[in-house]
Amino acid sequence: MPTILGQNQYGKAENRVVRITRDGTTHHIKDLNVSVALSGDMDEVHYSGSNANVLPTDTTKNTVYAFAKEHGIESAEQFGIHLARHFVTSQEPIHRARIRIEEYSWERIEAAGEGEHSFVRKGQETRLAQITFDGEKWEVVSGLKDLTVLNSTDSEFWGYVKDRYTTLKEAYDRILATSVSGRWRFNWTDDEQEMPDWETSYEETRKHMLQAFAETYSLSLQQTMYQMGTRIIDHRGEIDEVRFSLPNSHHFLVDMEPFGLKNDNEVYFAADRPYGLIEATVLREGCEARIPVDLTNL
Amino acid sequence: MPTILGQNQYGKAENRVVRITRDGTTHHIKDLNVSVALSGDMDEVHYSGSNANVLPTDTTKNTVYAFAKEHGIESAEQFGIHLARHFVTSQEPIHRARIRIEEYSWERIEAAGEGEHSFVRKGQETRLAQITFDGEKWEVVSGLKDLTVLNSTDSEFWGYVKDRYTTLKEAYDRILATSVSGRWRFNWTDDEQEMPDWETSYEETRKHMLQAFAETYSLSLQQTMYQMGTRIIDHRGEIDEVRFSLPNSHHFLVDMEPFGLKNDNEVYFAADRPYGLIEATVLREGCEARIPVDLTNL
Amino acid sequence: MPTILGQNQYGKAENRVVRITRDGTTHHIKDLNVSVALSGDMDEVHYSGSNANVLPTDTTKNTVYAFAKEHGIESAEQFGIHLARHFVTSQEPIHRARIRIEEYSWERIEAAGEGEHSFVRKGQETRLAQITFDGEKWEVVSGLKDLTVLNSTDSEFWGYVKDRYTTLKEAYDRILATSVSGRWRFNWTDDEQEMPDWETSYEETRKHMLQAFAETYSLSLQQTMYQMGTRIIDHRGEIDEVRFSLPNSHHFLVDMEPFGLKNDNEVYFAADRPYGLIEATVLREGCEARIPVDLTNL
Amino acid sequence: MPTILGQNQYGKAENRVVRITRDGTTHHIKDLNVSVALSGDMDEVHYSGSNANVLPTDTTKNTVYAFAKEHGIESAEQFGIHLARHFVTSQEPIHRARIRIEEYSWERIEAAGEGEHSFVRKGQETRLAQITFDGEKWEVVSGLKDLTVLNSTDSEFWGYVKDRYTTLKEAYDRILATSVSGRWRFNWTDDEQEMPDWETSYEETRKHMLQAFAETYSLSLQQTMYQMGTRIIDHRGEIDEVRFSLPNSHHFLVDMEPFGLKNDNEVYFAADRPYGLIEATVLREGCEARIPVDLTNL
Repeated sequence: MPTILGQNQYGKAENRVVRITRDGTTHHIKDLNVSVALSGDMDEVHYSGSNANVLPTDTTKNTVYAFAKEHGIESAEQFGIHLARHFVTSQEPIHRARIRIEEYSWERIEAAGEGEHSFVRKGQETRLAQITFDGEKWEVVSGLKDLTVLNSTDSEFWGYVKDRYTTLKEAYDRILATSVSGRWRFNWTDDEQEMPDWETSYEETRKHMLQAFAETYSLSLQQTMYQMGTRIIDHRGEIDEVRFSLPNSHHFLVDMEPFGLKNDNEVYFAADRPYGLIEATVLREGCEARIPVDLTNL
Repeated sequence: MPTILGQNQYGKAENRVVRITRDGTTHHIKDLNVSVALSGDMDEVHYSGSNANVLPTDTTKNTVYAFAKEHGIESAEQFGIHLARHFVTSQEPIHRARIRIEEYSWERIEAAGEGEHSFVRKGQETRLAQITFDGEKWEVVSGLKDLTVLNSTDSEFWGYVKDRYTTLKEAYDRILATSVSGRWRFNWTDDEQEMPDWETSYEETRKHMLQAFAETYSLSLQQTMYQMGTRIIDHRGEIDEVRFSLPNSHHFLVDMEPFGLKNDNEVYFAADRPYGLIEATVLREGCEARIPVDLTNL
Repeated sequence: MPTILGQNQYGKAENRVVRITRDGTTHHIKDLNVSVALSGDMDEVHYSGSNANVLPTDTTKNTVYAFAKEHGIESAEQFGIHLARHFVTSQEPIHRARIRIEEYSWERIEAAGEGEHSFVRKGQETRLAQITFDGEKWEVVSGLKDLTVLNSTDSEFWGYVKDRYTTLKEAYDRILATSVSGRWRFNWTDDEQEMPDWETSYEETRKHMLQAFAETYSLSLQQTMYQMGTRIIDHRGEIDEVRFSLPNSHHFLVDMEPFGLKNDNEVYFAADRPYGLIEATVLREGCEARIPVDLTNL
Repeated sequence: MPTILGQNQYGKAENRVVRITRDGTTHHIKDLNVSVALSGDMDEVHYSGSNANVLPTDTTKNTVYAFAKEHGIESAEQFGIHLARHFVTSQEPIHRARIRIEEYSWERIEAAGEGEHSFVRKGQETRLAQITFDGEKWEVVSGLKDLTVLNSTDSEFWGYVKDRYTTLKEAYDRILATSVSGRWRFNWTDDEQEMPDWETSYEETRKHMLQAFAETYSLSLQQTMYQMGTRIIDHRGEIDEVRFSLPNSHHFLVDMEPFGLKNDNEVYFAADRPYGLIEATVLREGCEARIPVDLTNL
């Protein structure tokens, strides 16, 4: 047979689980989208269709819901750790489990009456967590996507290479806007280590990213991105690696000379496509890069 | 000729305009998506292709940007009024202009350093405004979409009709969740009347909707919806009519008996499709309904 | 009470039903997305939450699936007629039913072996049908969306109005492209009339639209649209009214002079937003317009 | 400095280019979405914001359009090769270029009149190509996404592992449906080798995939996927590696017993989420896997 089977994985994707915790009439909510991917001794299901080693994807779905009951959802990361450990340790043919989670945030609605059980979805970014376990070592990568930010000044772009196809004019005061997609890898890899406080870590990392974006006087989006990464590495000892994928969401100054008007950095056309796409990894010195390079398919 | 031309309109849709206003180093932002639709004496462009009466859609786009400079953007509604008046009063063949606007909200990023010019997009709902002018009368309909809300208790559903195809079990404590799509029509129709404060009106209307949703002990989503509408009519004298389209975003309690677990209203499956779709108009007594009935195409 | 209840409707939206019909080893497939909206004597469910007149949306979903078994799916229109008749005639409080259907087409995969039961989804347009019944009269509106078409020549645009904000250059050979959204209303309104052949009617109507688009030398998209409508009215006696909503999907000729190249109508930038939006109704003489004017929300 | 810069890349993403070629009155169309990612000596733009080594993303956009004129678009792959070679060989700081392309297919509209210049977009799958060049070696990975296929019989699923959370019933005749996302890597890596015929290769690879899907009597989606991969490796000598990501698009047989009906594999509920996600690489013996493992982010 001239073909061989390479890396393979399977599981149920996008299990939407909402967990309500009742503290008297005050309720708490966790809202996740959980995807399971399992690997191991799976050659036969590909070669002959024998499912003898296959835990059905339907069962992995049921496990997600059962674990939301049995373990609760303290954080996306902790929930993924429960799930990954279960699949690898309870099923002999499964050697590796990867759990990917999207989390949607909710705020309380201020209202009259007793009890706190009304919520409005926060909108903004989707929080991400990926937990991988091979029976010995853990890898936890957290992150976010769709966090849209904009500086209306303190951004320039000039001094670049010019070739035959270059027509862009240099800019000394422009809008800098992007929709942040970021991932960061923790140095917690072992059950023997003390586990990070996942909720605090997320909130602080997000805050440092936003502040670095706002506080950097920018000569290029790459410079701003690198500052966002170094700020995280500097402040969060539990994180060794950050990867960003940042579209440069162009806001073009509208030319109003044909109308006899002067547009003094007031009115912009927010463009959709094309857009610059700026990507980089920032590492703690001495650490190796493990987050895959392409966070999008474009 | 056996065919005749009926209602027609044209214009440039989805003009994305961002307006920055600088108050020293403190900047303000307005972020709109503006669509123009013009009607009038337009038979010939359909019959023969003569564009003699046609102001190009490209010009309507330019006008949006020019007006953001000339008039600023105080509110979506006020901006739409400037535009609609211009098209109808400056071009003889144009007898009616309708401006539709989507508005995206931004919050400030808290950061060190002087100046306030960094923003994060709020996410949550998209604000809507529709302004129509026929040269004499105004119609302003404001609204929002994609405001996702959830009550984790205080919702029941029972006592309904049962026929041969009914299998649903009655519920005495369920999650009630929806993504609000609403429109409301103002009784401001004439330049002689005092204009509402559009920004305050929006914020207050949104607040009443959220509070009515949270404070209604619900026996049906229709009941909650009607409360949301009456609360607006009761509190906002400038509004005569409200129309809602509310998907019933089902959160199904997961059956855990097969796993030997009891799910005491803790773990839910958040479903995508199908969903209940509940729609109604709520009117101030004596007023006539003018908002179109179907806000979605489904 | 100062508020009153206006038009209201409810039902289950987006029921995804796939019907397989087996003719020996040759299978046939119908793939629909069915939305139900019921109206009638529904005041109390809004006022007090009493569900005594409410057939649950869950039951309307079950009915869709049961009817796919009991009646089969001959065409989207015929299926909707079965459903609408059922709801209005079997439930006294329900006075009006509206069924909206999206249909997805499939082609056969050519493959070895006996039997014909492998399919690839056609892609292209989504077919639409809307069936409304009030116990006496029927209204059937069929249509389609997302049928993307392009003429690479035989389109001009000049001779238009120029005002202070006009900068557009006249074009004597341009690309004309759009994504057709159309609806057409049948004059079948009564069980006494002979019913149209819905499948043939759809195929022929689609063909006339495409041919009219291709064969019209165009001086404006309005002219092309009107030709598409008249062609349908002329050829399909069962149709009295057509409504189109056509985005002008701009393909801008790229200016290559800065690179020292001449772009002789060869290379275009396909833009996303903004776009012209051209809408009109075309009617058979003597008929009244009943299709709502705005097929999109923009 | 405790942080270091890891892999980074930048460029303009999603350049939408349409190329018309006129052969008398018969026109041909190529419709692409081109994304450019460049890497090289780019430390300073991250550290200090110096753009001295940065060819602007705007220039990379201009180059896409200029090359569509200068070289035409024979195939997505050939076009990407022209672009990648240009960036790496013309700009010293750029050491590696990766071009990603989406291609949309069009069919002719049959119409009266002379000339062939009217098209309807085919819909169906999006064709993909990724070309990477480091100055010496080429890597070409082609593929497709969103090719939706369905077998209405000849699929079973049984004999799987059962644990505490397993509730799924075995199936001996089910619908098997998926939306194919696939990538395949060519063994053309060097300008000295004869280049594959990219257009023929794509059409034949697509055909083998579809036939393997249709002709495999399936005991698991993994088995079908593996057959799709081996069929390609067996028939297309220019391809060494295939990667698939296949959602198991569940079609659940609707239980009609509560309605007193028997559903004999006739009526199905097409579910959205969750879905099984089945992924694998198939390799020519002796070849190493180079296509990244995760084609989606879920």
